[in-house]
Amino acid sequence: MRQSRLFTKTRREAPRDELAKNAQLLIRAGYVHKEMAGVYSYLPLGRRVLENIEKVIRREMDAISGQEIRMATLHPSEPWKQSGGWDNVDVLFKIESRTEKEYALGQSEEEIVTPIAGEYAPSYKDLPLALYQIGQKYRDELRAKSGVLRGREFTMKDMYSFHTSQEDFDAYYEVVKEAYIKIFAECGLVAKVTEASGGSFSEKISYEFMVLTDAGEDTIVYCETCNYCSNVEVTNAKEGDPCPKDGSALKQGIASEVGNVFDLGQKYPKALGFTYKDEEGNDQYPIMGCYGMGITRLMGVVVEALADEKGIVWPESIAPFALHLVNAMPNDSEAVQYADELYDYLTARGTAVLYDDRDVRAGEKFADSDLLGIPNRLVVGKEALAGNSLELVNRATGEVERYTREELFQRYGT
Amino acid sequence: MRQSRLFTKTRREAPRDELAKNAQLLIRAGYVHKEMAGVYSYLPLGRRVLENIEKVIRREMDAISGQEIRMATLHPSEPWKQSGGWDNVDVLFKIESRTEKEYALGQSEEEIVTPIAGEYAPSYKDLPLALYQIGQKYRDELRAKSGVLRGREFTMKDMYSFHTSQEDFDAYYEVVKEAYIKIFAECGLVAKVTEASGGSFSEKISYEFMVLTDAGEDTIVYCETCNYCSNVEVTNAKEGDPCPKDGSALKQGIASEVGNVFDLGQKYPKALGFTYKDEEGNDQYPIMGCYGMGITRLMGVVVEALADEKGIVWPESIAPFALHLVNAMPNDSEAVQYADELYDYLTARGTAVLYDDRDVRAGEKFADSDLLGIPNRLVVGKEALAGNSLELVNRATGEVERYTREELFQRYGT
Repeated sequence: MRQSRLFTKTRREAPRDELAKNAQLLIRAGYVHKEMAGVYSYLPLGRRVLENIEKVIRREMDAISGQEIRMATLHPSEPWKQSGGWDNVDVLFKIESRTEKEYALGQSEEEIVTPIAGEYAPSYKDLPLALYQIGQKYRDELRAKSGVLRGREFTMKDMYSFHTSQEDFDAYYEVVKEAYIKIFAECGLVAKVTEASGGSFSEKISYEFMVLTDAGEDTIVYCETCNYCSNVEVTNAKEGDPCPKDGSALKQGIASEVGNVFDLGQKYPKALGFTYKDEEGNDQYPIMGCYGMGITRLMGVVVEALADEKGIVWPESIAPFALHLVNAMPNDSEAVQYADELYDYLTARGTAVLYDDRDVRAGEKFADSDLLGIPNRLVVGKEALAGNSLELVNRATGEVERYTREELFQRYGT
Repeated sequence: MRQSRLFTKTRREAPRDELAKNAQLLIRAGYVHKEMAGVYSYLPLGRRVLENIEKVIRREMDAISGQEIRMATLHPSEPWKQSGGWDNVDVLFKIESRTEKEYALGQSEEEIVTPIAGEYAPSYKDLPLALYQIGQKYRDELRAKSGVLRGREFTMKDMYSFHTSQEDFDAYYEVVKEAYIKIFAECGLVAKVTEASGGSFSEKISYEFMVLTDAGEDTIVYCETCNYCSNVEVTNAKEGDPCPKDGSALKQGIASEVGNVFDLGQKYPKALGFTYKDEEGNDQYPIMGCYGMGITRLMGVVVEALADEKGIVWPESIAPFALHLVNAMPNDSEAVQYADELYDYLTARGTAVLYDDRDVRAGEKFADSDLLGIPNRLVVGKEALAGNSLELVNRATGEVERYTREELFQRYGT
């Protein structure tokens, strides 16, 4: 995309009412627009990042037999009353309509997915079954905070699985855990898996995927020599205490939850009447699991964890563009022709290029480029015009590689 | 996808409470699940159709310089109060939160998009500007009806454009009109463009794109010899009256709206304070247009318009799969091997194949195939095993073409 046609622009100043680094940078770089506390719109660059995160998630959920659906977000009140959520989930938005019907806005979808699964899985032969969706969720938070990390509206991947036995659920949980860790790794994050309390979803234990970042809302204790990690909500351990697994001194840190898993047991199938016939023809309730992953939150956590003093740093897999092509001499017709040709060649071969063709000073272009955080920057300037190789600057490391045009075409021209 | 792994199944009977053909067929075929009147979830096949419609729309909106964003659907009340919509839009869902803040659920996004555009378009040089999104919309309908055609929650593409002059808007409207007609044509529909009243959006005239179908909610009069067409809401003309353009006898029919355009004038920029500097440095309000297209509605209208007595008929561009591969002899190991090989070959080359590998009777498979409406069906049976060419049956026309395996690979194997 030509940057001259991108309607957003960068800002020097962060808005005063945003304390979180993620929101400050995302707003300054034109990725998001704040509508009110906890609610953001996603502008073209932000939308591209979300779509790329969603692509990675879809690929991994499909690979573990997840079937993607799109569930309603405007919910009838009946299943929420049947499950008890209507009175017990404090963040549930309730709506009274003109017709005096009451609705809920989806903050999770157990009440919707359980009857769907129940309709199509009458037999043990239809299980296990894993359904997921990517869509908006709503929470009536008393205080929205941490920028896009804790919103009143946010985008989420939520998957639900149904099993004939606890063993089958436990085995599937391990499969999902591996998929989650793969997704976070592809987003440039190292996630730790903790035990946490189940909140209003379940009385059973739940698991959270946590990334250490100062913007986080949770405090965790973890062991650096084994995989022990726990949310302080569910443990008495603190910094320096011995690890219950291997005795090493525990570390304590602020972390952000980037995913969670709930073992829901038979709560929702029982409340909503989902039974299947087992091999003997008897009615049984399935065991149900829920697997969440906040997509807008993940975007914010990546900003928090990877940004530097110059701006955002995206990992290649989710960056809005793979390459930032910067024409440092926009008033030189030879440079324009050179850069135009590069842009046309690379985009024709499927490389996602943001092409800074704007008529502004090179210094401003470089500052904007650092702020936007596209993984690699390619500069067209005097050197390129003199026939020398081009500089490809890695945003994260600052490392410079030199490429001839032909080598560049080889790297990106597939 | 192997049909044995698709969690949905077809039903013989339509649910009793669904009068509309679109909902009856979509539910029977397992494309949608009804949550309540006017609210549906979209199951894997339905989700695929929506995604394909969205792909077509995105391509055409991008081609006319639309920039895609994702706006909030949970709206602050302030801009709605500023625009007057808070008290005047009867279908607006209002929410009172725990914090005693009031929110609106997006039924259109003028209140959100106008400040976004205003922030990034301070100068006439930044205009025209066209922003669009694809997402959920909510309407507090007194009566939801016509299946997925008029819902309380639905998926919509909404675009908004901002211009420095009426002429510029008028010219862009013509560009959008052509794009719309192209989209509808690709969905197998012929749309007529009518003038209609602007409803609560605007006091100016609006345009609607209408498809003749008995499930429609509007009555239109139209001329078969010229392009005159009008909603009866805004004309006194009726069946048999002379066409105001060429005098031919007008026809009357039931039609469904599949898109609309509103000339919003300066209403929202004035209400929400969006001014730009003109060439002389004076503050001006832009002229604004709004262009809607219901995506779940479009899916329903296609079903209404193209289905036959055997089931749904999808046009190729939006079908959930391009090809329905049916193994009519699932207990014959040679047939299974033959069909598996075909499936692997075609999917490896990017053809979207639904492969009916289920262990059920051939007659049931063919009935299901007709109901699902995938454009072409390829049958593996005795003939194929005897080395003869394969039958490719066109769902819409019933026409049979014969292909050798090699010819088939040529047609689909790109």
